[in-house]
Amino acid sequence: MKLLDGAIAAVDHGGSLGRASALFPHAPRPFVDLSTGINPHSYPLFELPATALSRLPESERLRELAEIAARTYGAPSAAHVAAAPGTQILLPRVASLVRPGKALVLGPTYAEHARAAAIAGHAAAEVDDFDALADADLAVLVNPNNPDGRVVERDRLLDLAARLRAKGGLLVVDEAFMDVGPTEQSLAGHVGQGGIVVLRSFGKFFGLAGVRLGFALADRLTVERLDAQLGPWAVAGPALEYGIRALADTKWLCDMRRRLAGDAKRLDALLGRFGIPVAGGTILFRYLSLPAVQSLFSALGERGVLVRHFAERPQVLRIGLPGSEEEWQRLEGALAAWASRRDDAPKETAP
Amino acid sequence: MKLLDGAIAAVDHGGSLGRASALFPHAPRPFVDLSTGINPHSYPLFELPATALSRLPESERLRELAEIAARTYGAPSAAHVAAAPGTQILLPRVASLVRPGKALVLGPTYAEHARAAAIAGHAAAEVDDFDALADADLAVLVNPNNPDGRVVERDRLLDLAARLRAKGGLLVVDEAFMDVGPTEQSLAGHVGQGGIVVLRSFGKFFGLAGVRLGFALADRLTVERLDAQLGPWAVAGPALEYGIRALADTKWLCDMRRRLAGDAKRLDALLGRFGIPVAGGTILFRYLSLPAVQSLFSALGERGVLVRHFAERPQVLRIGLPGSEEEWQRLEGALAAWASRRDDAPKETAP
Repeated sequence: MKLLDGAIAAVDHGGSLGRASALFPHAPRPFVDLSTGINPHSYPLFELPATALSRLPESERLRELAEIAARTYGAPSAAHVAAAPGTQILLPRVASLVRPGKALVLGPTYAEHARAAAIAGHAAAEVDDFDALADADLAVLVNPNNPDGRVVERDRLLDLAARLRAKGGLLVVDEAFMDVGPTEQSLAGHVGQGGIVVLRSFGKFFGLAGVRLGFALADRLTVERLDAQLGPWAVAGPALEYGIRALADTKWLCDMRRRLAGDAKRLDALLGRFGIPVAGGTILFRYLSLPAVQSLFSALGERGVLVRHFAERPQVLRIGLPGSEEEWQRLEGALAAWASRRDDAPKETAP
Repeated sequence: MKLLDGAIAAVDHGGSLGRASALFPHAPRPFVDLSTGINPHSYPLFELPATALSRLPESERLRELAEIAARTYGAPSAAHVAAAPGTQILLPRVASLVRPGKALVLGPTYAEHARAAAIAGHAAAEVDDFDALADADLAVLVNPNNPDGRVVERDRLLDLAARLRAKGGLLVVDEAFMDVGPTEQSLAGHVGQGGIVVLRSFGKFFGLAGVRLGFALADRLTVERLDAQLGPWAVAGPALEYGIRALADTKWLCDMRRRLAGDAKRLDALLGRFGIPVAGGTILFRYLSLPAVQSLFSALGERGVLVRHFAERPQVLRIGLPGSEEEWQRLEGALAAWASRRDDAPKETAP
């Protein structure tokens, strides 16, 4: 158990081209950014009505969004949905739903959860054993997990939620990548019983991370408390318009799940050709664990292909899906260059 | 002094066409919405790069926005600027900078300030005497004030800030309408000394309320605390792009101030023709105080012209600026209809 008290400093994330440029100044541009788990096939862009920018967002439109989100995510009703400008800004608010105590985060995972719990005044720690979460006042896990794709079954989560609820605690399940399944493990349909907050991210699956839209699914009273903190007009006009249209587009959702599953298979095959085993992940990103991870990270970066490494776990990488054929080819070329250098290495050291 | 403890319920606001439709179902459409203080002449819309929607906002771009905002608003540096998805979502966070105590809001004013202070755990009250604010742990005022346009001079504010700072308190000055002056009374340049938070709104003056962008100007440490609460990517891609371009466009700013001043004069003259005295306001809205306010509100509403009334102060109205010539004409027609009805009334009751 690693203590994280006071660890409120900013966290390193993927997805920054500015940082990539500093790290790999001689890499060919544009970068192929595989450092996030964001879908490269964005929901089709459309022209926004001018009023989406000029006018204050209408509360009726926000209600409509909550209704569609409830239906798509499987929450009991719109009253069980708080919409926010991204899930990120919700994290300290959700952590503040419980008075400061012991926050346990099932790790290794997305680092912002421990940071948000610390900001909310909790003594925050990461644990690697699911059963240890029952000791918490605030228990947090990501399901399926980022970056390794670990899935905890719904029944175990419901059991944990019941134990926490009995002592006034809270279970937070970040389902940021649940759009690509396994949806039968989602807790969205169970938030009505209280003591559970499910977080859902709009930008990742829909490939629209810039619009900033995320949701907390919870019992009605908790949703009211979160809504009060966010105030009116928390969701911007563009996010409202894209959210309403995209979340209701069930055909696009189904087609995209199938397409991404195919892309993930293709990525696994490509990595396999170069002897890189895939240790986990979701169909939006793959999780690699191998000893040569640093040389792979650098070799790809120098060829303008960015993947995600983790300062504290130097043996793993996360790699997102290429979008265009050109991106696939650049990844393949970079992998080939890395493999040939690796294959050469023994000869050099043992002439 | 009116106690507001527990008054955390939602606040009624202008700018909702849904509510207007329910209130005036037979009014001609579209509504002429003069119920907000939002500039009807929006900053020119432009095509956003697709990446503004698809990618996570870049931290470099956020820094650029903070630099431009510091320059335009007159804050000491970018490190004194926290950017957020609207000022509204900042209110409870700013109120939470001081441990729960006595919050005093100089009223009557924007109701969300007292609500945010109550959410943050303060005993919140409205006072109508500026000098009473010195008793607070958290003192809040809007300068120039919404809706009456009252202005408090900078020297008095600095004196109050010093007294509050000496006891660990905080002065919050909401300068949501300061873009239209009197800018010499702004505290933006003084936030470095600590104990002061200045709020600036992007959407009102630039007529882009839907993009959700607002700022807190404060000392560096306070900005760091607010940034930690907001997390990375709090400002959406469209808000970043519009903020960077519009806040740097000093020619547009100057021209717009002049244009709005002309519009406000025209509105005063129009109201004067119908015997309606203007009691205050800023050049983005005018403040009317007259006994016949309810009949005026209804007469305008029935003709599809929405103005802002205040449930708790039934003798005042706030009226924004019409945008197009058509809107001016519809306002004039509605005023004429109201005036003729008013002029007829005595004859009817005294035949």
